[in-house]
Amino acid sequence: MRIIDLREVSLPISRYADPSAPSGGLNTSMLALITNVIRDGKPVVGYGFASIGRFAQSGLIRERFAPRLLAASEADLTDDAGTNLDPFRAWRVMMTNEKPGGHGERCVAVGALDMALWDAAAKIARLPLYRLLMDRMGTPQRDAPRRVSVYAGGGYYYPSDDIARLSDEVRCFRDLGYRRAKIKIGSAPLAQDLKRIDAAARLLDGPGNVAVDAIYAYTAATSLAVADALAPRGLWWFEDICDQPLL
Amino acid sequence: MRIIDLREVSLPISRYADPSAPSGGLNTSMLALITNVIRDGKPVVGYGFASIGRFAQSGLIRERFAPRLLAASEADLTDDAGTNLDPFRAWRVMMTNEKPGGHGERCVAVGALDMALWDAAAKIARLPLYRLLMDRMGTPQRDAPRRVSVYAGGGYYYPSDDIARLSDEVRCFRDLGYRRAKIKIGSAPLAQDLKRIDAAARLLDGPGNVAVDAIYAYTAATSLAVADALAPRGLWWFEDICDQPLL
Repeated sequence: MRIIDLREVSLPISRYADPSAPSGGLNTSMLALITNVIRDGKPVVGYGFASIGRFAQSGLIRERFAPRLLAASEADLTDDAGTNLDPFRAWRVMMTNEKPGGHGERCVAVGALDMALWDAAAKIARLPLYRLLMDRMGTPQRDAPRRVSVYAGGGYYYPSDDIARLSDEVRCFRDLGYRRAKIKIGSAPLAQDLKRIDAAARLLDGPGNVAVDAIYAYTAATSLAVADALAPRGLWWFEDICDQPLL
Repeated sequence: MRIIDLREVSLPISRYADPSAPSGGLNTSMLALITNVIRDGKPVVGYGFASIGRFAQSGLIRERFAPRLLAASEADLTDDAGTNLDPFRAWRVMMTNEKPGGHGERCVAVGALDMALWDAAAKIARLPLYRLLMDRMGTPQRDAPRRVSVYAGGGYYYPSDDIARLSDEVRCFRDLGYRRAKIKIGSAPLAQDLKRIDAAARLLDGPGNVAVDAIYAYTAATSLAVADALAPRGLWWFEDICDQPLL
Protein backbone atom coordinates (compact mmCIF):
# COMPACT_ATOMS: atom_id res chain seq x y z
CA MET A 1 0.00 0.00 0.00
CA ARG A 2 1.47 3.31 -1.07
CA ILE A 3 0.61 6.94 -1.58
CA ILE A 4 1.18 7.34 -5.30
CA ASP A 5 0.48 11.05 -5.63
CA LEU A 6 -0.31 14.15 -3.58
CA ARG A 7 -1.97 16.98 -5.46
CA GLU A 8 -2.41 20.36 -3.89
CA VAL A 9 -4.16 23.43 -5.23
CA SER A 10 -4.48 26.85 -3.68
CA LEU A 11 -8.02 28.22 -3.97
CA PRO A 12 -9.39 31.67 -3.09
CA ILE A 13 -11.71 31.67 -0.08
CA SER A 14 -13.62 34.38 1.70
CA ARG A 15 -12.66 34.94 5.31
CA TYR A 16 -16.15 36.22 6.03
CA ALA A 17 -19.68 35.00 5.69
CA ASP A 18 -20.41 37.97 3.50
CA PRO A 19 -18.51 37.76 0.21
CA SER A 20 -18.75 41.53 -0.16
CA ALA A 21 -16.46 41.94 2.85
CA PRO A 22 -12.74 42.22 2.14
CA SER A 23 -11.15 38.84 2.47
CA GLY A 24 -7.53 39.97 2.35
CA GLY A 25 -6.65 37.71 -0.56
CA LEU A 26 -7.22 34.70 1.64
CA ASN A 27 -6.74 31.32 0.02
CA THR A 28 -6.65 27.73 1.21
CA SER A 29 -4.97 24.46 0.25
CA MET A 30 -7.12 21.66 -1.12
CA LEU A 31 -5.41 18.28 -1.19
CA ALA A 32 -5.97 14.94 -2.90
CA LEU A 33 -3.95 12.01 -1.52
CA ILE A 34 -4.04 9.23 -4.08
CA THR A 35 -3.38 5.67 -2.94
CA ASN A 36 -2.70 2.52 -4.93
CA VAL A 37 -5.71 0.82 -3.31
CA ILE A 38 -8.42 0.13 -5.87
CA ARG A 39 -12.11 0.20 -4.93
CA ASP A 40 -14.79 -0.22 -7.60
CA GLY A 41 -12.15 0.11 -10.29
CA LYS A 42 -10.82 3.44 -9.02
CA PRO A 43 -7.99 4.41 -6.65
CA VAL A 44 -8.99 5.42 -3.12
CA VAL A 45 -8.40 9.16 -2.75
CA GLY A 46 -8.32 10.99 0.58
CA TYR A 47 -9.23 14.66 0.59
CA GLY A 48 -8.11 17.38 2.96
CA PHE A 49 -8.28 21.11 3.21
CA ALA A 50 -7.03 23.85 5.48
CA SER A 51 -9.36 26.62 6.41
CA ILE A 52 -8.77 28.26 9.73
CA GLY A 53 -8.49 31.76 8.34
CA ARG A 54 -4.84 31.23 7.46
CA PHE A 55 -3.41 31.04 3.99
CA ALA A 56 -2.76 28.10 1.66
CA GLN A 57 0.39 26.17 2.49
CA SER A 58 1.43 25.16 -1.02
CA GLY A 59 5.08 25.89 -0.29
CA LEU A 60 5.44 23.88 2.91
CA ILE A 61 3.45 20.96 1.48
CA ARG A 62 5.50 20.80 -1.71
CA GLU A 63 8.87 21.55 -0.13
CA ARG A 64 8.77 19.22 2.86
CA PHE A 65 5.69 17.20 3.75
CA ALA A 66 4.47 15.72 0.46
CA PRO A 67 8.01 14.64 -0.59
CA ARG A 68 8.51 12.87 2.75
CA LEU A 69 5.23 10.97 2.44
CA LEU A 70 5.89 10.03 -1.18
CA ALA A 71 9.42 8.81 -0.34
CA ALA A 72 8.36 6.80 2.73
CA SER A 73 8.54 3.01 2.80
CA GLU A 74 5.35 0.98 2.99
CA ALA A 75 6.24 -0.08 6.53
CA ASP A 76 6.50 3.53 7.65
CA LEU A 77 3.01 4.37 6.39
CA THR A 78 0.88 1.31 7.06
CA ASP A 79 -0.41 -0.63 10.06
CA ASP A 80 1.24 -3.88 11.13
CA ALA A 81 -1.06 -5.95 8.95
CA GLY A 82 -0.24 -3.78 5.96
CA THR A 83 -3.94 -3.49 5.20
CA ASN A 84 -4.45 0.22 5.75
CA LEU A 85 -2.66 3.52 6.08
CA ASP A 86 -1.69 4.36 9.66
CA PRO A 87 -2.09 8.14 9.99
CA PHE A 88 -0.03 8.18 13.21
CA ARG A 89 2.93 6.56 11.45
CA ALA A 90 2.48 8.89 8.50
CA TRP A 91 2.54 11.78 10.95
CA ARG A 92 5.94 10.65 12.21
CA VAL A 93 7.18 10.54 8.61
CA MET A 94 5.96 14.08 8.00
CA MET A 95 7.58 15.42 11.15
CA THR A 96 11.00 13.85 10.57
CA ASN A 97 13.77 16.40 11.26
CA GLU A 98 11.24 19.08 12.20
CA LYS A 99 12.02 21.29 15.16
CA PRO A 100 9.40 21.92 17.85
CA GLY A 101 7.34 25.02 17.19
CA GLY A 102 6.08 25.97 13.74
CA HIS A 103 2.68 26.99 15.02
CA GLY A 104 0.30 28.72 12.64
CA GLU A 105 1.89 27.75 9.35
CA ARG A 106 3.33 24.24 9.56
CA CYS A 107 0.36 22.91 11.51
CA VAL A 108 -1.92 24.03 8.67
CA ALA A 109 0.16 22.11 6.11
CA VAL A 110 0.42 18.98 8.27
CA GLY A 111 -3.22 19.28 9.35
CA ALA A 112 -4.51 19.29 5.77
CA LEU A 113 -2.41 16.21 5.00
CA ASP A 114 -3.57 14.57 8.23
CA MET A 115 -7.19 15.10 7.19
CA ALA A 116 -6.51 13.51 3.79
CA LEU A 117 -4.74 10.56 5.45
CA TRP A 118 -7.69 9.86 7.79
CA ASP A 119 -10.17 10.26 4.94
CA ALA A 120 -8.24 7.71 2.85
CA ALA A 121 -7.85 5.34 5.82
CA ALA A 122 -11.60 5.42 6.53
CA LYS A 123 -12.42 4.71 2.89
CA ILE A 124 -9.92 1.84 2.79
CA ALA A 125 -11.42 0.45 6.01
CA ARG A 126 -14.95 0.90 4.55
CA LEU A 127 -15.98 2.69 7.75
CA PRO A 128 -17.33 6.14 8.47
CA LEU A 129 -14.46 8.21 9.86
CA TYR A 130 -16.01 8.55 13.32
CA ARG A 131 -16.07 4.74 13.62
CA LEU A 132 -12.46 4.38 12.48
CA LEU A 133 -11.38 7.08 14.93
CA MET A 134 -13.25 5.38 17.76
CA ASP A 135 -11.67 2.02 16.90
CA ARG A 136 -8.19 3.54 16.72
CA MET A 137 -8.37 5.90 19.67
CA GLY A 138 -10.41 3.78 22.05
CA THR A 139 -13.22 5.16 24.15
CA PRO A 140 -13.72 4.78 27.88
CA GLN A 141 -17.23 3.42 27.31
CA ARG A 142 -17.34 0.99 24.42
CA ASP A 143 -21.11 0.62 24.71
CA ALA A 144 -21.78 4.34 24.84
CA PRO A 145 -24.08 5.74 22.14
CA ARG A 146 -22.01 6.18 19.00
CA ARG A 147 -22.40 9.89 18.63
CA VAL A 148 -19.99 12.70 17.84
CA SER A 149 -20.55 16.18 19.19
CA VAL A 150 -20.27 18.83 16.47
CA TYR A 151 -20.80 22.56 16.21
CA ALA A 152 -21.18 25.13 13.46
CA GLY A 153 -18.43 27.74 13.24
CA GLY A 154 -19.22 31.14 11.77
CA GLY A 155 -20.90 34.28 13.01
CA TYR A 156 -18.46 36.78 11.51
CA TYR A 157 -19.41 40.43 11.54
CA TYR A 158 -21.71 41.67 8.79
CA PRO A 159 -21.00 45.09 7.31
CA SER A 160 -24.66 46.09 7.83
CA ASP A 161 -27.71 44.71 9.68
CA ASP A 162 -25.29 42.70 11.76
CA ILE A 163 -27.64 41.34 14.41
CA ALA A 164 -30.42 40.47 11.95
CA ARG A 165 -28.07 38.73 9.54
CA LEU A 166 -26.20 36.94 12.31
CA SER A 167 -29.59 35.69 13.54
CA ASP A 168 -30.43 34.44 10.05
CA GLU A 169 -27.11 32.61 9.95
CA VAL A 170 -27.61 30.94 13.33
CA ARG A 171 -31.18 30.04 12.36
CA CYS A 172 -29.72 28.37 9.28
CA PHE A 173 -27.28 26.42 11.49
CA ARG A 174 -30.20 25.32 13.65
CA ASP A 175 -32.26 24.28 10.63
CA LEU A 176 -29.33 22.13 9.51
CA GLY A 177 -29.48 20.30 12.83
CA TYR A 178 -26.69 22.03 14.77
CA ARG A 179 -27.43 22.65 18.42
CA ARG A 180 -24.25 24.58 19.11
CA ALA A 181 -22.31 27.31 17.32
CA LYS A 182 -19.24 29.48 17.62
CA ILE A 183 -19.45 33.18 16.69
CA LYS A 184 -16.95 36.03 16.53
CA ILE A 185 -16.53 38.80 19.05
CA GLY A 186 -13.85 41.39 19.77
CA SER A 187 -14.18 43.70 16.77
CA ALA A 188 -17.11 45.73 18.12
CA PRO A 189 -17.70 47.47 21.43
CA LEU A 190 -18.50 44.99 24.19
CA ALA A 191 -22.16 46.08 24.43
CA GLN A 192 -22.64 45.21 20.75
CA ASP A 193 -20.86 41.88 21.17
CA LEU A 194 -23.16 41.02 24.06
CA LYS A 195 -26.11 41.66 21.74
CA ARG A 196 -24.56 39.26 19.21
CA ILE A 197 -24.11 36.62 21.88
CA ASP A 198 -27.65 37.03 23.17
CA ALA A 199 -29.09 36.83 19.65
CA ALA A 200 -27.29 33.54 19.04
CA ALA A 201 -28.15 32.21 22.48
CA ARG A 202 -31.88 32.83 21.98
CA LEU A 203 -31.82 30.64 18.87
CA LEU A 204 -29.68 27.88 20.42
CA ASP A 205 -31.47 27.28 23.72
CA GLY A 206 -29.19 29.40 25.84
CA PRO A 207 -25.65 30.77 26.02
CA GLY A 208 -24.27 27.41 27.14
CA ASN A 209 -24.52 26.35 23.48
CA VAL A 210 -22.62 29.40 22.19
CA ALA A 211 -18.83 29.64 21.99
CA VAL A 212 -17.08 32.91 21.14
CA ASP A 213 -13.84 33.51 19.25
CA ALA A 214 -12.07 36.86 19.55
CA ILE A 215 -9.36 36.03 16.96
CA TYR A 216 -6.87 37.65 19.37
CA ALA A 217 -8.61 41.04 19.25
CA TYR A 218 -8.08 41.80 22.94
CA THR A 219 -5.04 43.20 24.63
CA ALA A 220 -3.54 42.01 27.87
CA ALA A 221 -5.34 44.93 29.49
CA THR A 222 -8.83 44.25 28.06
CA SER A 223 -8.88 40.43 28.13
CA LEU A 224 -9.69 39.99 31.77
CA ALA A 225 -12.34 42.70 31.79
CA VAL A 226 -14.10 41.07 28.86
CA ALA A 227 -13.84 37.64 30.50
CA ASP A 228 -15.44 39.08 33.62
CA ALA A 229 -18.27 40.55 31.55
CA LEU A 230 -18.87 37.26 29.74
CA ALA A 231 -18.63 35.00 32.79
CA PRO A 232 -22.22 35.41 34.05
CA ARG A 233 -23.57 34.09 30.73
CA GLY A 234 -21.84 30.72 31.09
CA LEU A 235 -20.78 30.49 27.45
CA TRP A 236 -19.57 27.21 26.00
CA TRP A 237 -16.03 28.59 25.58
CA PHE A 238 -13.99 31.78 24.88
CA GLU A 239 -11.32 31.24 22.22
CA ASP A 240 -8.20 33.05 20.87
CA ILE A 241 -8.54 35.88 23.33
CA CYS A 242 -5.20 37.65 23.24
CA ASP A 243 -1.79 37.23 21.62
CA GLN A 244 0.09 39.07 24.37
CA PRO A 245 1.29 37.73 27.72
CA LEU A 246 -1.37 38.46 30.33
CA LEU A 247 -0.37 41.04 32.90
CA MET B 1 12.31 54.58 -4.33
CA ARG B 2 11.05 51.08 -5.03
CA ILE B 3 11.94 47.46 -4.56
CA ILE B 4 12.21 46.28 -8.14
CA ASP B 5 12.88 42.59 -7.54
CA LEU B 6 13.11 40.02 -4.78
CA ARG B 7 15.08 36.90 -5.59
CA GLU B 8 15.07 33.91 -3.29
CA VAL B 9 17.00 30.68 -3.56
CA SER B 10 16.90 27.65 -1.31
CA LEU B 11 20.39 26.36 -0.50
CA PRO B 12 21.44 23.21 1.36
CA ILE B 13 23.01 23.89 4.74
CA SER B 14 24.41 21.64 7.46
CA ARG B 15 22.61 21.81 10.78
CA TYR B 16 25.83 20.80 12.51
CA ALA B 17 29.33 22.07 12.75
CA ASP B 18 30.53 18.73 11.45
CA PRO B 19 29.41 18.20 7.87
CA SER B 20 29.66 14.41 8.36
CA ALA B 21 26.72 14.57 10.78
CA PRO B 22 23.27 14.04 9.31
CA SER B 23 21.69 17.38 8.56
CA GLY B 24 18.18 16.15 7.81
CA GLY B 25 18.06 17.72 4.38
CA LEU B 26 18.19 21.14 5.98
CA ASN B 27 18.16 24.10 3.65
CA THR B 28 17.87 27.85 4.02
CA SER B 29 16.55 30.81 2.06
CA MET B 30 19.02 33.33 0.64
CA LEU B 31 17.46 36.58 -0.50
CA ALA B 32 18.46 39.51 -2.68
CA LEU B 33 16.26 42.60 -2.43
CA ILE B 34 16.99 44.81 -5.43
CA THR B 35 16.17 48.50 -5.23
CA ASN B 36 16.02 51.16 -7.91
CA VAL B 37 18.62 53.24 -6.05
CA ILE B 38 21.85 53.45 -8.03
CA ARG B 39 25.23 53.66 -6.28
CA ASP B 40 28.44 53.62 -8.31
CA GLY B 41 26.48 52.66 -11.39
CA LYS B 42 24.83 49.61 -9.79
CA PRO B 43 21.52 49.08 -7.97
CA VAL B 44 21.67 48.86 -4.18
CA VAL B 45 20.94 45.26 -3.19
CA GLY B 46 20.07 44.14 0.35
CA TYR B 47 20.85 40.58 1.31
CA GLY B 48 19.15 38.38 3.87
CA PHE B 49 19.18 34.78 4.93
CA ALA B 50 17.37 32.53 7.35
CA SER B 51 19.38 30.11 9.36
CA ILE B 52 18.01 29.16 12.72
CA GLY B 53 17.97 25.43 12.08
CA ARG B 54 14.65 25.68 10.29
CA PHE B 55 14.04 25.11 6.62
CA ALA B 56 13.99 27.48 3.65
CA GLN B 57 10.77 29.46 3.33
CA SER B 58 10.58 29.72 -0.45
CA GLY B 59 6.84 29.07 -0.43
CA LEU B 60 5.82 31.69 2.11
CA ILE B 61 8.16 34.28 0.61
CA ARG B 62 6.88 33.74 -2.93
CA GLU B 63 3.22 33.25 -2.03
CA ARG B 64 2.70 36.15 0.35
CA PHE B 65 5.54 38.39 1.47
CA ALA B 66 7.50 39.20 -1.69
CA PRO B 67 4.33 39.95 -3.71
CA ARG B 68 3.12 42.35 -1.00
CA LEU B 69 6.44 44.23 -0.95
CA LEU B 70 6.63 44.39 -4.74
CA ALA B 71 3.05 45.67 -4.99
CA ALA B 72 3.44 48.30 -2.24
CA SER B 73 3.35 52.01 -2.99
CA GLU B 74 6.46 54.12 -2.51
CA ALA B 75 4.81 55.88 0.44
CA ASP B 76 4.21 52.56 2.19
CA LEU B 77 7.87 51.57 1.95
CA THR B 78 9.87 54.76 2.44
CA ASP B 79 10.50 57.28 5.17
CA ASP B 80 8.74 60.66 5.17
CA ALA B 81 11.54 62.30 3.19
CA GLY B 82 11.34 59.56 0.58
CA THR B 83 15.11 59.18 0.76
CA ASN B 84 15.38 55.66 2.16
CA LEU B 85 13.47 52.46 2.76
CA ASP B 86 11.71 52.36 6.13
CA PRO B 87 11.92 48.73 7.31
CA PHE B 88 9.20 49.31 9.92
CA ARG B 89 6.75 50.47 7.25
CA ALA B 90 7.81 47.58 5.02
CA TRP B 91 7.12 45.26 7.94
CA ARG B 92 3.55 46.55 8.14
CA VAL B 93 3.17 45.90 4.40
CA MET B 94 4.40 42.33 4.82
CA MET B 95 2.08 41.61 7.74
CA THR B 96 -1.09 42.96 6.09
CA ASN B 97 -3.99 40.54 6.64
CA GLU B 98 -1.80 38.16 8.66
CA LYS B 99 -3.27 36.58 11.77
CA PRO B 100 -1.35 36.61 15.03
CA GLY B 101 0.73 33.48 15.50
CA GLY B 102 2.70 31.86 12.71
CA HIS B 103 5.72 31.23 14.89
CA GLY B 104 8.51 29.09 13.53
CA GLU B 105 7.73 29.33 9.82
CA ARG B 106 6.37 32.78 8.98
CA CYS B 107 8.86 34.53 11.23
CA VAL B 108 11.69 32.90 9.27
CA ALA B 109 10.29 34.19 5.99
CA VAL B 110 9.62 37.68 7.33
CA GLY B 111 12.91 37.72 9.24
CA ALA B 112 14.97 37.00 6.13
CA LEU B 113 13.18 39.80 4.29
CA ASP B 114 13.61 42.11 7.27
CA MET B 115 17.36 41.46 7.22
CA ALA B 116 17.51 42.30 3.50
CA LEU B 117 15.49 45.49 4.07
CA TRP B 118 17.83 46.72 6.81
CA ASP B 119 20.89 45.80 4.74
CA ALA B 120 19.55 47.80 1.81
CA ALA B 121 18.56 50.74 4.05
CA ALA B 122 22.05 50.91 5.58
CA LYS B 123 23.67 50.86 2.15
CA ILE B 124 21.33 53.58 0.90
CA ALA B 125 22.12 55.65 4.01
CA ARG B 126 25.86 54.99 3.50
CA LEU B 127 26.09 53.94 7.14
CA PRO B 128 27.17 50.74 8.87
CA LEU B 129 24.01 48.93 9.96
CA TYR B 130 24.72 49.37 13.66
CA ARG B 131 24.80 53.15 13.19
CA LEU B 132 21.56 53.18 11.21
CA LEU B 133 19.89 51.03 13.87
CA MET B 134 21.11 53.34 16.62
CA ASP B 135 19.85 56.38 14.73
CA ARG B 136 16.46 54.80 14.10
CA MET B 137 15.92 53.11 17.46
CA GLY B 138 17.44 55.73 19.71
CA THR B 139 19.69 54.92 22.64
CA PRO B 140 19.38 56.11 26.21
CA GLN B 141 22.95 57.43 26.15
CA ARG B 142 23.73 59.19 22.93
CA ASP B 143 27.35 59.70 23.93
CA ALA B 144 27.94 56.11 24.97
CA PRO B 145 30.74 54.23 23.21
CA ARG B 146 29.41 53.04 19.87
CA ARG B 147 29.77 49.35 20.40
CA VAL B 148 27.53 46.37 19.73
CA SER B 149 27.71 43.25 21.85
CA VAL B 150 27.96 40.10 19.73
CA TYR B 151 28.45 36.42 20.37
CA ALA B 152 29.39 33.35 18.36
CA GLY B 153 26.69 30.67 18.08
CA GLY B 154 27.71 27.05 17.57
CA GLY B 155 29.00 24.30 19.80
CA TYR B 156 26.89 21.48 18.33
CA TYR B 157 27.72 17.93 19.36
CA TYR B 158 30.54 16.22 17.51
CA PRO B 159 30.11 12.55 16.63
CA SER B 160 33.55 11.75 18.17
CA ASP B 161 36.13 13.58 20.32
CA ASP B 162 33.36 15.92 21.32
CA ILE B 163 35.10 17.86 24.08
CA ALA B 164 38.39 18.25 22.18
CA ARG B 165 36.66 19.38 19.00
CA LEU B 166 34.27 21.67 20.86
CA SER B 167 37.33 23.24 22.51
CA ASP B 168 38.95 23.75 19.10
CA GLU B 169 35.76 25.44 17.90
CA VAL B 170 35.54 27.79 20.87
CA ARG B 171 39.26 28.55 20.56
CA CYS B 172 38.56 29.51 16.96
CA PHE B 173 35.73 31.82 18.09
CA ARG B 174 38.12 33.44 20.57
CA ASP B 175 40.81 33.86 17.94
CA LEU B 176 38.25 35.65 15.76
CA GLY B 177 37.70 38.14 18.58
CA TYR B 178 34.53 36.78 20.17
CA ARG B 179 34.41 36.95 23.95
CA ARG B 180 31.11 35.13 24.31
CA ALA B 181 29.57 32.04 22.73
CA LYS B 182 26.47 29.91 22.82
CA ILE B 183 26.78 26.12 22.75
CA LYS B 184 24.32 23.22 22.63
CA ILE B 185 23.29 21.02 25.54
CA GLY B 186 20.46 18.57 26.16
CA SER B 187 21.40 15.70 23.86
CA ALA B 188 23.91 14.09 26.22
CA PRO B 189 23.72 13.09 29.88
CA LEU B 190 23.94 16.11 32.17
CA ALA B 191 27.43 15.21 33.42
CA GLN B 192 28.74 15.27 29.85
CA ASP B 193 26.97 18.57 29.15
CA LEU B 194 28.59 20.09 32.23
CA LYS B 195 31.99 19.06 30.79
CA ARG B 196 31.08 20.81 27.53
CA ILE B 197 30.09 23.95 29.43
CA ASP B 198 33.26 23.90 31.52
CA ALA B 199 35.44 23.40 28.44
CA ALA B 200 33.90 26.44 26.77
CA ALA B 201 34.01 28.48 29.99
CA ARG B 202 37.74 27.87 30.45
CA LEU B 203 38.41 29.35 27.00
CA LEU B 204 36.06 32.33 27.45
CA ASP B 205 37.08 33.65 30.86
CA GLY B 206 34.33 31.95 32.81
CA PRO B 207 30.80 30.57 32.49
CA GLY B 208 29.28 34.05 32.55
CA ASN B 209 30.38 34.33 28.91
CA VAL B 210 28.75 31.04 27.89
CA ALA B 211 25.09 30.66 26.91
CA VAL B 212 23.51 27.25 26.40
CA ASP B 213 20.75 26.17 24.01
CA ALA B 214 18.88 22.92 24.62
CA ILE B 215 16.82 23.11 21.38
CA TYR B 216 13.83 21.97 23.45
CA ALA B 217 15.48 18.68 24.44
CA TYR B 218 14.12 18.70 27.98
CA THR B 219 10.73 17.62 29.20
CA ALA B 220 8.57 19.44 31.70
CA ALA B 221 9.88 16.96 34.27
CA THR B 222 13.62 17.41 33.56
CA SER B 223 13.74 21.15 32.80
CA LEU B 224 13.74 22.40 36.36
CA ALA B 225 16.23 19.79 37.55
CA VAL B 226 18.66 20.81 34.80
CA ALA B 227 18.12 24.50 35.57
CA ASP B 228 18.96 23.80 39.22
CA ALA B 229 22.14 21.97 38.18
CA LEU B 230 23.21 24.84 35.89
CA ALA B 231 22.34 27.67 38.27
CA PRO B 232 25.56 27.64 40.35
CA ARG B 233 27.65 28.26 37.22
CA GLY B 234 25.96 31.58 36.47
CA LEU B 235 25.76 31.02 32.71
CA TRP B 236 24.96 33.91 30.38
CA TRP B 237 21.57 32.36 29.51
CA PHE B 238 19.68 29.06 29.05
CA GLU B 239 17.66 28.95 25.81
CA ASP B 240 14.90 26.82 24.20
CA ILE B 241 14.61 24.58 27.20
CA CYS B 242 11.34 22.75 26.74
CA ASP B 243 8.39 22.72 24.34
CA GLN B 244 5.89 21.46 26.94
CA PRO B 245 4.01 23.47 29.55
CA LEU B 246 6.00 23.37 32.78
CA LEU B 247 4.38 21.37 35.56
